[in-house]
Amino acid sequence: MIRVTIWNEYEHERNIPGIMAVYPEGIHGALKKNLDPEEDMIVRCSTLDDPEQGLSEEILADTDVLIWWSHARQDDVTDKTVERVIRHVHSGMGLIALHSAHFSRVFRRLMGTPCTLSWKHGDREKLFCVEPSHPIAKGIPACIELEDEELYGEPFSIPKPDDVVFMGWFEGGAVFRSGCTFTRGYGRIFYFQPGHEENRVYDHPDIRRIIVNSIRWAAPSVRLAAPPDNVELG
Amino acid sequence: MIRVTIWNEYEHERNIPGIMAVYPEGIHGALKKNLDPEEDMIVRCSTLDDPEQGLSEEILADTDVLIWWSHARQDDVTDKTVERVIRHVHSGMGLIALHSAHFSRVFRRLMGTPCTLSWKHGDREKLFCVEPSHPIAKGIPACIELEDEELYGEPFSIPKPDDVVFMGWFEGGAVFRSGCTFTRGYGRIFYFQPGHEENRVYDHPDIRRIIVNSIRWAAPSVRLAAPPDNVELG
Amino acid sequence: MIRVTIWNEYEHERNIPGIMAVYPEGIHGALKKNLDPEEDMIVRCSTLDDPEQGLSEEILADTDVLIWWSHARQDDVTDKTVERVIRHVHSGMGLIALHSAHFSRVFRRLMGTPCTLSWKHGDREKLFCVEPSHPIAKGIPACIELEDEELYGEPFSIPKPDDVVFMGWFEGGAVFRSGCTFTRGYGRIFYFQPGHEENRVYDHPDIRRIIVNSIRWAAPSVRLAAPPDNVELG
Amino acid sequence: MIRVTIWNEYEHERNIPGIMAVYPEGIHGALKKNLDPEEDMIVRCSTLDDPEQGLSEEILADTDVLIWWSHARQDDVTDKTVERVIRHVHSGMGLIALHSAHFSRVFRRLMGTPCTLSWKHGDREKLFCVEPSHPIAKGIPACIELEDEELYGEPFSIPKPDDVVFMGWFEGGAVFRSGCTFTRGYGRIFYFQPGHEENRVYDHPDIRRIIVNSIRWAAPSVRLAAPPDNVELG
Repeated sequence: MIRVTIWNEYEHERNIPGIMAVYPEGIHGALKKNLDPEEDMIVRCSTLDDPEQGLSEEILADTDVLIWWSHARQDDVTDKTVERVIRHVHSGMGLIALHSAHFSRVFRRLMGTPCTLSWKHGDREKLFCVEPSHPIAKGIPACIELEDEELYGEPFSIPKPDDVVFMGWFEGGAVFRSGCTFTRGYGRIFYFQPGHEENRVYDHPDIRRIIVNSIRWAAPSVRLAAPPDNVELG
Repeated sequence: MIRVTIWNEYEHERNIPGIMAVYPEGIHGALKKNLDPEEDMIVRCSTLDDPEQGLSEEILADTDVLIWWSHARQDDVTDKTVERVIRHVHSGMGLIALHSAHFSRVFRRLMGTPCTLSWKHGDREKLFCVEPSHPIAKGIPACIELEDEELYGEPFSIPKPDDVVFMGWFEGGAVFRSGCTFTRGYGRIFYFQPGHEENRVYDHPDIRRIIVNSIRWAAPSVRLAAPPDNVELG
Repeated sequence: MIRVTIWNEYEHERNIPGIMAVYPEGIHGALKKNLDPEEDMIVRCSTLDDPEQGLSEEILADTDVLIWWSHARQDDVTDKTVERVIRHVHSGMGLIALHSAHFSRVFRRLMGTPCTLSWKHGDREKLFCVEPSHPIAKGIPACIELEDEELYGEPFSIPKPDDVVFMGWFEGGAVFRSGCTFTRGYGRIFYFQPGHEENRVYDHPDIRRIIVNSIRWAAPSVRLAAPPDNVELG
Repeated sequence: MIRVTIWNEYEHERNIPGIMAVYPEGIHGALKKNLDPEEDMIVRCSTLDDPEQGLSEEILADTDVLIWWSHARQDDVTDKTVERVIRHVHSGMGLIALHSAHFSRVFRRLMGTPCTLSWKHGDREKLFCVEPSHPIAKGIPACIELEDEELYGEPFSIPKPDDVVFMGWFEGGAVFRSGCTFTRGYGRIFYFQPGHEENRVYDHPDIRRIIVNSIRWAAPSVRLAAPPDNVELG
């Protein structure tokens, strides 16, 4: 069984009426509903206002793959929380960073780059599969059309990804590396661009399927008790 | 001095009136005119109907960087010519494959993949610079607008490039890895998508600059007399 | 079920007494014996002297992952066989190229490089796992000691691999990228250096495990009827 | 002109008699002496005990390529200094991290990984050139022998490098990715393993040449006033 924790800052869905209406159960709740049918996954949620910011040592030690959504409160995540999450990624915990999580403190620290991009509200996206034999692309069509999505455009200031599985085309005139993998220590990371809070894109069957695939891909085959350390040979 | 040979199949510009009008001096002639002012380059041209298909041992041995344009007569290039060019690439000769050269026999053999793509006549392109610190991007703006260009779209069946320097956005609804680098043996290769024969895109100052940059990047620091061979250690 | 075909040129084991003694059932026979217990695999063998060089259209169409061992008779593999195998790799068939298969015509064509290296008989190897979270490294220790192995050394003239999973250290004074992955079209390729015919290294439990892992990793999630082709958009 | 700043924690050479004898002018002094003859470089030094830890805003803004050596006092480098250096790397400043700088706070933050390795005092190294056509390898032989060097061994917990230019073999039984490149924002980074403080390896003509080459490679073609930021499109 893959132990999945969906972490959400859970801000917009409690405070902005239009977004409350889109995701009344929170983005985490919607993601959970979509993952619950998967028989090889146990899914739970936590949020920024939970004790220890919802990312306690106990929760992380009990998580194989962490899904992360954040936007308005990126900077409320404390140094201590950031360090704890990174330590678990280095030890093997998988991480799926969704949409505006490109600018979360955890993702930026794992990348070592600014992680900045261009953006614009209200656009139409075509998501192209560039690596069709990648496990995350299993069962995914060559192109997914998303009628309402926020435009994210290059330059996206990330290190060279291990794999660029998906590339996004935006009607407003932008391209984006929309689905990228990285390895950091023993942890496998997938960044996935779709998921603007104003549209219920996570219920799209292909988007749902990509997230399911990415969880299976990111689940660790090895999980260390602590990150690797320097070793003096005898 | 970098010795540049521009090789062109030189077919459309002799046989299709509309294209004759666009490139009366041939695509090779237009490229040469654009490169001649560069003081660190000596530029010559050759074409498919020249002796030994314009790619004799003498010419290749005297070439640091080979620029290649082909389309209608890809399959007229013989095995012998293909082997000769590949041998020189492996020995250190640089190769700039332009536009429809994605499907040349030489490029496909160097890639080891089908090199297929999607395409459509008559579109508008925005070319985004994704690796702004790459030598090929020196002096190039974040986005180049090309009013008339053929649409090339993913999936582009190439191996993972060393670098994706440029990504193309097409109004018709496609994205493309438009500027990619590869290393094969001692040879450095740049594939560059713009250059449909119906529009004089090679005179665009930024496109011209990219080609100049790519020649400097691909010029060998080491040129072997023959490709590397297996070596039995003493 | 993963349909595995083990292909062997089967030359040394029939003609050189010392090697007959090491692998009386042929290298293919030894590999098969090691894979037979895997419940998710159906394993068969074929060899160079079989009809259509053991690589007929029927056999390839019925193969998910092809294991390849060759050395003395690399050049007896015909153009037709090479083209057929490559077509199936591009369509999704996995390929595991073992030891001296670095210089097989199929592998060199898929790489597009010389694939040359340094070598010396009779050495001791330590095989280090460099990407411990890679699926091919599952259950593999940080270092495997091989008392008798042929030395293979850098420079190994290959394109940049997708992943370097294992690196070899040789007592005689060489390093080598011993376990490398590549993608070509829809096909996943693993090159693995151990397997000199004079020592029964394929029975080493960790080597056996790496090959099992690599078969699961290379098994296609998509298998096309033919390689991708250029597509004109409507 | 390339403005080079050599930064050294400058601890061992002031406090350990054996190392004082090896590098009486400090490691920075020895490096400077080796770089001074290069006509396209202006070289200066700074050290940890200088004002603002030798890495003030003025110094960094006036530096094209920063060379970094540190070991015993890694953790004395403050958050403020780390942030300042990273901001300049993201803006285009090149960084050459030498030897034990693998564990400097700046390098680890730019990598996003533990950057741990295996090590042992007193060994013999053979440094193999794996990418002979890379600009950093210009004029470098296929193998450099270093009689006295500290053993550094895999696993080296770094992200996949852009290029692995050199691989190290150690007599004591280890391999290492000894020369690796990375890009972070607009900054180019080269990690280079040789340089244990107990041996005067930086005077070895090939090691000197590699460092010179790496400075030219890392010198920025674009230098921003500040790192890239998110951009809202109009």
